[in-house]
Amino acid sequence: MTNKLYDTSLSLLTDLYQVTMAYGYWKSGTAEKEAVFNLYFRKHPFGGGFTVACGLTNVIGYIEHFSLSKKDLRYLQTLTGNDGQPLFEEAFLDYLANLKLTCDIEAIPEGTVVFPNEPLVRVRGPILQCQLLETPLLNLINFESLIATKAARLRLVAENDTLLEFGLRRAQGVDGGMTASRAAYIGGCDATSNVLAGKLYGIPVRGTHAHSWVMSFENEAEAFQTYADVLPNNVTLLVDTYDTIQGVHNAIEVGRKLEQKGHKLAGIRLDSGDLAYLSIAARKLLDEAGFTDTAIVASNDLDETIITSLKQQGAKIDVWGVGTKLVTAFDQPALGGVYKLAALRHTSSENAEPDGWDYKMKLSEQAIKISTPGIQQVRRFRNEQGFIADMIFDESNAEPNPAGVTMTMIDPLDFTKRRKFDATQAFDDLLVPVFRDGTCVYESPDIHAIRARVQTQLTNLHSGVKRFVNPHTYPVGLERNLHELKTALVMKLRERND
Amino acid sequence: MTNKLYDTSLSLLTDLYQVTMAYGYWKSGTAEKEAVFNLYFRKHPFGGGFTVACGLTNVIGYIEHFSLSKKDLRYLQTLTGNDGQPLFEEAFLDYLANLKLTCDIEAIPEGTVVFPNEPLVRVRGPILQCQLLETPLLNLINFESLIATKAARLRLVAENDTLLEFGLRRAQGVDGGMTASRAAYIGGCDATSNVLAGKLYGIPVRGTHAHSWVMSFENEAEAFQTYADVLPNNVTLLVDTYDTIQGVHNAIEVGRKLEQKGHKLAGIRLDSGDLAYLSIAARKLLDEAGFTDTAIVASNDLDETIITSLKQQGAKIDVWGVGTKLVTAFDQPALGGVYKLAALRHTSSENAEPDGWDYKMKLSEQAIKISTPGIQQVRRFRNEQGFIADMIFDESNAEPNPAGVTMTMIDPLDFTKRRKFDATQAFDDLLVPVFRDGTCVYESPDIHAIRARVQTQLTNLHSGVKRFVNPHTYPVGLERNLHELKTALVMKLRERND
Repeated sequence: MTNKLYDTSLSLLTDLYQVTMAYGYWKSGTAEKEAVFNLYFRKHPFGGGFTVACGLTNVIGYIEHFSLSKKDLRYLQTLTGNDGQPLFEEAFLDYLANLKLTCDIEAIPEGTVVFPNEPLVRVRGPILQCQLLETPLLNLINFESLIATKAARLRLVAENDTLLEFGLRRAQGVDGGMTASRAAYIGGCDATSNVLAGKLYGIPVRGTHAHSWVMSFENEAEAFQTYADVLPNNVTLLVDTYDTIQGVHNAIEVGRKLEQKGHKLAGIRLDSGDLAYLSIAARKLLDEAGFTDTAIVASNDLDETIITSLKQQGAKIDVWGVGTKLVTAFDQPALGGVYKLAALRHTSSENAEPDGWDYKMKLSEQAIKISTPGIQQVRRFRNEQGFIADMIFDESNAEPNPAGVTMTMIDPLDFTKRRKFDATQAFDDLLVPVFRDGTCVYESPDIHAIRARVQTQLTNLHSGVKRFVNPHTYPVGLERNLHELKTALVMKLRERND
Repeated sequence: MTNKLYDTSLSLLTDLYQVTMAYGYWKSGTAEKEAVFNLYFRKHPFGGGFTVACGLTNVIGYIEHFSLSKKDLRYLQTLTGNDGQPLFEEAFLDYLANLKLTCDIEAIPEGTVVFPNEPLVRVRGPILQCQLLETPLLNLINFESLIATKAARLRLVAENDTLLEFGLRRAQGVDGGMTASRAAYIGGCDATSNVLAGKLYGIPVRGTHAHSWVMSFENEAEAFQTYADVLPNNVTLLVDTYDTIQGVHNAIEVGRKLEQKGHKLAGIRLDSGDLAYLSIAARKLLDEAGFTDTAIVASNDLDETIITSLKQQGAKIDVWGVGTKLVTAFDQPALGGVYKLAALRHTSSENAEPDGWDYKMKLSEQAIKISTPGIQQVRRFRNEQGFIADMIFDESNAEPNPAGVTMTMIDPLDFTKRRKFDATQAFDDLLVPVFRDGTCVYESPDIHAIRARVQTQLTNLHSGVKRFVNPHTYPVGLERNLHELKTALVMKLRERND
């Protein structure tokens, strides 16, 4: 799977410090040292209780096309330090020219609900390569997961109504629009207005006309009639260019003529004013005229709060068009995903940990910012009612046989809280192999299957977790051995700094 | 000027309703009718008093590459209406296949400060073409203007300090990152961490190392020393991986060895903790050790409010690294630009206005949402102190000779407030020709010149307009004839709806 927008070399889509560090590893002879990095976030967006993982398909496309072009290298050659001398030796640029990615990458499939501190992507390979991938992976996963989550929230409040994404004009650049349309569909939108997203991603597209269509005619009735004559199988009329109620009357007139010709008035659209009042009034007029099947579409800066409020007011809206607030994730326009070194193959015996890894972590005064070391996997326990808890464990250091025995999970915020899962407990391990030695071994499901997965996942979450106000915290903990290893490492690092 | 990210056909980067309307115009025989559309916004972002126009270079690239590919047309062919029949006739797709844009486009140059209701871009040409351009123009101008404005605000608070953009990992997709890096530089940043933006746009790039570099060594001192050995001409050391103060001591040790070899410790970077306290403590340690020229770089969710606060606390920070809050315009992630039909060539004599135009506007219950008709130009009056006021006038209907006589400007919110400008008053007309009959006649200045223009423009604005809290409203009004025409049209439209 590739994203056509990325046909040009995007291999330099990274922070300069990834390249200077790569140079540092290369020059100090540690470029090939095996490392493990985890990509995770620390807090759900929008004050919510869940996040939808998204962006892996584009990550795969990015990595499969990774290759530094001659132009890329010529550019790096021009970079200089504070003495005016080149930053990089020629031999390093030759090394980059021949660099083939050889990482093993695991990831949680797109459309899965995920929680803070869980590795969404785990990259294992030569530290130089892991480092170069940090920025693009964060860029792609952070944004798509953010928008898919926003769309999933909108889907929850829209219930069975149709949900359309209309955001391209207010999106953050071309790809801010393209990527948002994809993630919004995955999260639960039914269609997009973005034609290029329809073409490239196979998302259904929807749209009829704007105010300018109405304004370009002598009057609204003529504009509506012309539209219906020309596109009789796609008639949703925007009724608020001049006066909304008069607009509904004009639409009904057109609807009558459409019916005579065997077509139908599919809908009317409200884009301003009091949507609760106007939709109720419009529904009444339509029903009285016999247009009970004509849908009422509403748009105008909608988000999950406004949709909830409109529903509580009894608004008669069948189709919700959301734009700006969805594609920019307006109330929290960034997911704070991070990418942290978690283990490094040891080279000397003195610091050896079991299985040959030195475990690595970033200390912080704030407990939430201390990273977790280890070759992490996430085990999600479930029963017939749904998901029970997620346990993060170290694949190389869990209790004897993680597949068959009782495992103990420890609450990361209160180590006295423990939970045991015995061998009879059903589970799924969430991270699946995506790259092996640089070759993709994973086939992304099609976009419709990913979208369906989101809804299945959400039905497995307790309603308290899906609540918007003070959601219940879904339990995520560390497996006991990993907890103990992390605690010991924190103590050791703190001591060293004393 | 083209943007390499757009090498693929982006001609379908538009809302479906633009295509259905285009079909409607074509089918009803009005496709070639000459129209004028204005792109403008209604409110400054971030509660501020000014906005920086940006995005024109990418608009030019988009339009110059506009051409529907065979694949685009095949995709449009697959679209169906609610009866399962195709939306579009084959002859329309043939028409699109041969479509060459022939519009005249005027725009306000990038880097100009602009105000609500001023046309940033004016498109004049066959209505079908104007309509197809709406969505991409809004996408490109809205986002880049938003980010350039954010960066200009950051530049105002950073004063003469260095300002770096570090946002790629949290940006809204690839182009959300690329475009943001460009606009951030134009708005006033000195450099970016985004290497691809450096390569494509010629923006200076900056970066040294991350926490993972430090974590990959046995201890911080070894990590710092290795980095300094490898890249002695680019040494800014991140000191907060374990303990910040100890990190400063370690950096000083490395700095001493660097000096012995004729290099220097360029800087240290703080990325967590109390930046005011830590920067003051670090400055003291550095100065005491003789490293008075070593810069202190700070990052960690900075924005203009936090930078102002840190400066008030006496923080000793020389370089500000801003990321998420800048590239997503976190506190207001969308500029609400709109694109409205303002005039249409009349075809019958009965509705003729002077000069053959029917003036068009969108009514609304809210005065701020009523659009202004006319073939608009913006005249900016100035004196030695700077900009005085902007007057929007209709090029085909202004007072006899707009270049030579007294013009009267009317306050759009209070028509009794009037201001006269006589023929001696210096002015600039802001909109300049960009396309003539579909051919680009404008050469975008290079990015450094655009960036310099922003700063010159800002020096011409009264400090009250640049204030963040309750900024003074810069005066923008309508020229008297345009005001009267608009008033008459509103009255006529309201009457018709009564």
